[in-house]
Amino acid sequence: MELTGFSQEQLDLREAVANICSQFPDEYWARHDESGVYPHELHVALAKHGWIGIALPEDLGGVGLGISEATMMLQTISQSGAGIAGAQSIHANSVNDLRQVISTGLETLKLQTRAIRDGDSYKISGQKIWISSAQVASKMILLARTTSLQEVKKPSEGLSLFFIDFDRHAPGLELKKIKKMGGRAVDANEVFFDNYRVPADTLIGEEGQGFKIVLHGMNAERCLLAGEALGLGYAALEKASKYAQERVVFGRPIGQNQGIQHPLAAAYMNLEAAKLATYHAARVYDTSGKDPNVTPHAVGVACNSAKYLAAEASFTACERSVLAHGGMGYAQEYHVERYMRECFVPRIAPVSREMVMNYIGEKVLGLPRSY
Amino acid sequence: MELTGFSQEQLDLREAVANICSQFPDEYWARHDESGVYPHELHVALAKHGWIGIALPEDLGGVGLGISEATMMLQTISQSGAGIAGAQSIHANSVNDLRQVISTGLETLKLQTRAIRDGDSYKISGQKIWISSAQVASKMILLARTTSLQEVKKPSEGLSLFFIDFDRHAPGLELKKIKKMGGRAVDANEVFFDNYRVPADTLIGEEGQGFKIVLHGMNAERCLLAGEALGLGYAALEKASKYAQERVVFGRPIGQNQGIQHPLAAAYMNLEAAKLATYHAARVYDTSGKDPNVTPHAVGVACNSAKYLAAEASFTACERSVLAHGGMGYAQEYHVERYMRECFVPRIAPVSREMVMNYIGEKVLGLPRSY
Amino acid sequence: MELTGFSQEQLDLREAVANICSQFPDEYWARHDESGVYPHELHVALAKHGWIGIALPEDLGGVGLGISEATMMLQTISQSGAGIAGAQSIHANSVNDLRQVISTGLETLKLQTRAIRDGDSYKISGQKIWISSAQVASKMILLARTTSLQEVKKPSEGLSLFFIDFDRHAPGLELKKIKKMGGRAVDANEVFFDNYRVPADTLIGEEGQGFKIVLHGMNAERCLLAGEALGLGYAALEKASKYAQERVVFGRPIGQNQGIQHPLAAAYMNLEAAKLATYHAARVYDTSGKDPNVTPHAVGVACNSAKYLAAEASFTACERSVLAHGGMGYAQEYHVERYMRECFVPRIAPVSREMVMNYIGEKVLGLPRSY
Amino acid sequence: MELTGFSQEQLDLREAVANICSQFPDEYWARHDESGVYPHELHVALAKHGWIGIALPEDLGGVGLGISEATMMLQTISQSGAGIAGAQSIHANSVNDLRQVISTGLETLKLQTRAIRDGDSYKISGQKIWISSAQVASKMILLARTTSLQEVKKPSEGLSLFFIDFDRHAPGLELKKIKKMGGRAVDANEVFFDNYRVPADTLIGEEGQGFKIVLHGMNAERCLLAGEALGLGYAALEKASKYAQERVVFGRPIGQNQGIQHPLAAAYMNLEAAKLATYHAARVYDTSGKDPNVTPHAVGVACNSAKYLAAEASFTACERSVLAHGGMGYAQEYHVERYMRECFVPRIAPVSREMVMNYIGEKVLGLPRSY
Repeated sequence: MELTGFSQEQLDLREAVANICSQFPDEYWARHDESGVYPHELHVALAKHGWIGIALPEDLGGVGLGISEATMMLQTISQSGAGIAGAQSIHANSVNDLRQVISTGLETLKLQTRAIRDGDSYKISGQKIWISSAQVASKMILLARTTSLQEVKKPSEGLSLFFIDFDRHAPGLELKKIKKMGGRAVDANEVFFDNYRVPADTLIGEEGQGFKIVLHGMNAERCLLAGEALGLGYAALEKASKYAQERVVFGRPIGQNQGIQHPLAAAYMNLEAAKLATYHAARVYDTSGKDPNVTPHAVGVACNSAKYLAAEASFTACERSVLAHGGMGYAQEYHVERYMRECFVPRIAPVSREMVMNYIGEKVLGLPRSY
Repeated sequence: MELTGFSQEQLDLREAVANICSQFPDEYWARHDESGVYPHELHVALAKHGWIGIALPEDLGGVGLGISEATMMLQTISQSGAGIAGAQSIHANSVNDLRQVISTGLETLKLQTRAIRDGDSYKISGQKIWISSAQVASKMILLARTTSLQEVKKPSEGLSLFFIDFDRHAPGLELKKIKKMGGRAVDANEVFFDNYRVPADTLIGEEGQGFKIVLHGMNAERCLLAGEALGLGYAALEKASKYAQERVVFGRPIGQNQGIQHPLAAAYMNLEAAKLATYHAARVYDTSGKDPNVTPHAVGVACNSAKYLAAEASFTACERSVLAHGGMGYAQEYHVERYMRECFVPRIAPVSREMVMNYIGEKVLGLPRSY
Repeated sequence: MELTGFSQEQLDLREAVANICSQFPDEYWARHDESGVYPHELHVALAKHGWIGIALPEDLGGVGLGISEATMMLQTISQSGAGIAGAQSIHANSVNDLRQVISTGLETLKLQTRAIRDGDSYKISGQKIWISSAQVASKMILLARTTSLQEVKKPSEGLSLFFIDFDRHAPGLELKKIKKMGGRAVDANEVFFDNYRVPADTLIGEEGQGFKIVLHGMNAERCLLAGEALGLGYAALEKASKYAQERVVFGRPIGQNQGIQHPLAAAYMNLEAAKLATYHAARVYDTSGKDPNVTPHAVGVACNSAKYLAAEASFTACERSVLAHGGMGYAQEYHVERYMRECFVPRIAPVSREMVMNYIGEKVLGLPRSY
Repeated sequence: MELTGFSQEQLDLREAVANICSQFPDEYWARHDESGVYPHELHVALAKHGWIGIALPEDLGGVGLGISEATMMLQTISQSGAGIAGAQSIHANSVNDLRQVISTGLETLKLQTRAIRDGDSYKISGQKIWISSAQVASKMILLARTTSLQEVKKPSEGLSLFFIDFDRHAPGLELKKIKKMGGRAVDANEVFFDNYRVPADTLIGEEGQGFKIVLHGMNAERCLLAGEALGLGYAALEKASKYAQERVVFGRPIGQNQGIQHPLAAAYMNLEAAKLATYHAARVYDTSGKDPNVTPHAVGVACNSAKYLAAEASFTACERSVLAHGGMGYAQEYHVERYMRECFVPRIAPVSREMVMNYIGEKVLGLPRSY
């Protein structure tokens, strides 16, 4: 990755995080991917150096660094070989906990999880899917409907945000682990609430204002995922370049063949472009609210585009790296197969490629809504 | 898959094999992929109906049906949800055992496994990689060098073929299982021979004639892999179509969105073209030796192209199917993630995409050798 | 192009047509593309040897050879360097004249050209676009509505087919030539009818039965365009291969670089697959009506897919050939720029890529109509 | 195009140039493309407002604005509908005249044009190709070898730069116009020098130092071409979006179909990423020499990548726009066919895609030279 254009603070952050991550080599992540054991050690190591919660908004107990820095941190973790799994084990805790909410995608407005006030409590009922780390988490940020769809004018009204204890042994809460293609070190789950009771003071902000809070976080989320995708892509290209330098067939390094070299070079250039798009989006995000010239439109376009571009560039980089390894690309020992399995996550989440294209089609190109 | 153009015999074979495979639903294969337990039951079921060995050349104890039929059989197995893993569990035994040899790729001529005559025996030394089913097989077809590279005029000379007992407990034979991205129901291995002794009468044909026998088999192998790739691709599209018909978002089946529908339709057309190329190649292969107009050149071009086309079309179909499933594409429960992990096999083996392009570039387009 | 699998009759036809076309080298076509002068000479030369009208249905005065042969003939013309322009100068006359009708696409059913009976005449009013050769043609097959949309149950009813004199000097007929990207040797036009009078006996078949006749021809049309696309693609690859063999940079033929060689090889394999799809479709088309196993569904799927696949493969071949030529790819003198400009025609006509994908999505994959 | 992140000065420049260009609508450019008449009027209009020569280095008589601004200006011209042709009519004069030199590509070092000192003159002999505007230019910057290849240690030595009168009527100078795919408003030529005599004081800098001066200009050139490519791509998308909003088929704007909308949206996002890469490269270029942290390596990687990314994104945008227009994409009247023909220029010049990939492969990924 070219570093020209980053601030010294960002470069320092990158180096510090990379140093910590270097204690967790590819073999660590391969082992955890295989066993499904949660990588607590990375969290501990980053926490020891004060990196957990750095970008969590201050009103949620964090220290409020920018999304640019959070993106850089998650990219660095991913790029260390930790991949999406490693990044996700930190992501929720270090940045914000909105991911669980957001992973339900753009249909958020129709979300059916209800929170009904009952004295000093709310009773939560409903179901959520693709909740990461639920097997180990003790807290959850939850978006739930406090006023029914029938009683609101717009679906974006009547939603409230809670910061709740997540007690797997309490009544009314059940988990079902989802087996998945990759990122197996970090569990994904279906969560079922059935009159799960939480104190009323777990409400964040005012009742009915949840969506407004979440909305802005959605764009941050896109940047973070973009960063994680980038890290994975660069890691894949580094592995492939090294292999192509060293592996000799027909008396020469295979990287001397343009059939190997050119797809990697093209993948690199696309990653670089996606990197520029990602940090541009993060900068736009961080500036919004401060600079009146930065409109919500610009933020949305930049962040959605960055997520899309980084995910696609990461996919191409991973795929090309597997192919550059020949048969070895298929073996766990060379790690790129693990990256390949993970690189689908940012293509699919937190919003699908198709929904991003709809967004750009409508908001930028002025085309009619297609669905 | 459109069936116009297939013979009634082929269609009957397809139906019979599909019926047997239907006892082994996707869940069976997901389970075996997870546990790594060999799917012996499919082999037993197919053997009971006489389908094992149907295309094994008669001089190797088979019944000598054509490669067209063997391709159809392996495609049908793969397409049933068994995938590449299921097909490979049958492939070696039902068709021929040349795969182990061929999987070393086009560098076969440099292969270093030696077989040295010692009285009534040969002593085998050397190493092979990506040998499937070695944890369960009792026989192996082995290509080994009986005259050293220094003593032959061309590297294609001095190679001999053996049909040997594969005794994991005998001295001089060691195995190392390779962990891999997919197809985990069927083991892949590194095999190490160190003065492993086999009787001299395990030699097939004459000493030094091994490559000639193998060469023809290499083209057959490409057809078989092409068929397996096709099966996987059609299975993926069927799953995606079904999901896109049933899954409702924003009040309509997602398959009503062209963003979902068109990529699947394009993938289908590409699969159909690859199917025509595959069965064309198999027909050309089966005709060669009988029809003087069918040259070895035509066979090589057709079989290499078919392998390439089918593998690429299968990849696209699997990838599009994962994406069409949204988040569910990532969950084991929907099976397309398993297909996705397997579809790299025919892209990489038994010959890489790059070597096929070199072959076409030189043999068809008349361009200079590039490596 | 590999020839294995074609009949001797087809190969003979190919050779005969290629011989005639060899009198019209690339320079002839470059000149006519530049001047816009109609290439009458090719028509004359082919007519002299009896090749005009060979596949025109016998009831329209032709000799009734199959669409397989017509496709082969048009591919051969295109492949000679005549391209789509050269093929189109023959296409309408030698095969059928339905193209004018069909070029209005799948919205045919809404076509607004009216033919109103008036004594022994019909009076034609309305407008058509993309009518080729109208500057030189003397006959036209015209689909027009004889019963208004309001008076029919289904839009496919009330359409009638006419075989009319096309008299540019008669009242009620006006032409407007369309300037276009390529294929400039053959004019394209907007045609305006305003009470243009034709004798009643120009009606083909019965009044109101026009769409039924046209419908079948639409599938033939797709095969023919597929053949023309293939010819263009093979011509482009041949030029590129030759250039890559001869052009020396950095002391070696550029074709020795995989960056040049592999894209051409991949394009070749895709063309071969599209070729198999095209002649499969033509065979299915020619068999339909004779073999009860060949359903209209199978014909439609095969012909639409063939058109799509051949057009896309041709596009890739042309594009890769331009790039393989470096700067020379941009110069008229090397001819591939002309092919590049023409290869969009079969992508766009007679039916768009998107409509083919809709067709496959609905008819094969069972997905809901998206528009 | 999103404008967040540009400086006010750049935005002002953009608006001013766009205003001037708005006097030259698409029809102007279509007409000149058809006739081949040089678009002098644009040059005059821009000169009147002082925009010619703004980025020409001060020692060559310009005013020395940055390459960032020159890139913005050329993008704006291209985006106005003037395309590559319009931009190229200004490019050489307004920025620098190095293009003629650079268009011979990375084999520059082997260039055979000789300049032999003869008293107060040099006599030029040799041949150059793809020299734009030579039919109308009166000045030329010429790179020629003043010391023969045999007498220098490295091919980069012994080259000298001249700023000469270009007198088409003088002895020893001949031109041959090249017919080409697009950009026909601006002539391209082969230029033949045969003892063409120029005064000795036309030498720029010292004899033998020409390559050093040119080398830096090569990177600027890549930025400028990138900007021109971007402009073309955005213009194409704008036309396509407008058409897709207005064109109604089956009762709805075609842009409501995701089959139309999504490819345009994806093309837009790729253009945006290429835009960020282009202005990042220009900024890096403009900073180099001032900021010691900006290495020549960083400049080369950024500028080559930007050219590659912008050219590919432009190609995709143009191609998708043609297809979105259906048949109308093929008609001159809708202009996108002209853009399509022009978008090959930045893919091919001033350096091929393959050479950029070699550059990245070697300089960034550390792979061996492949040619």
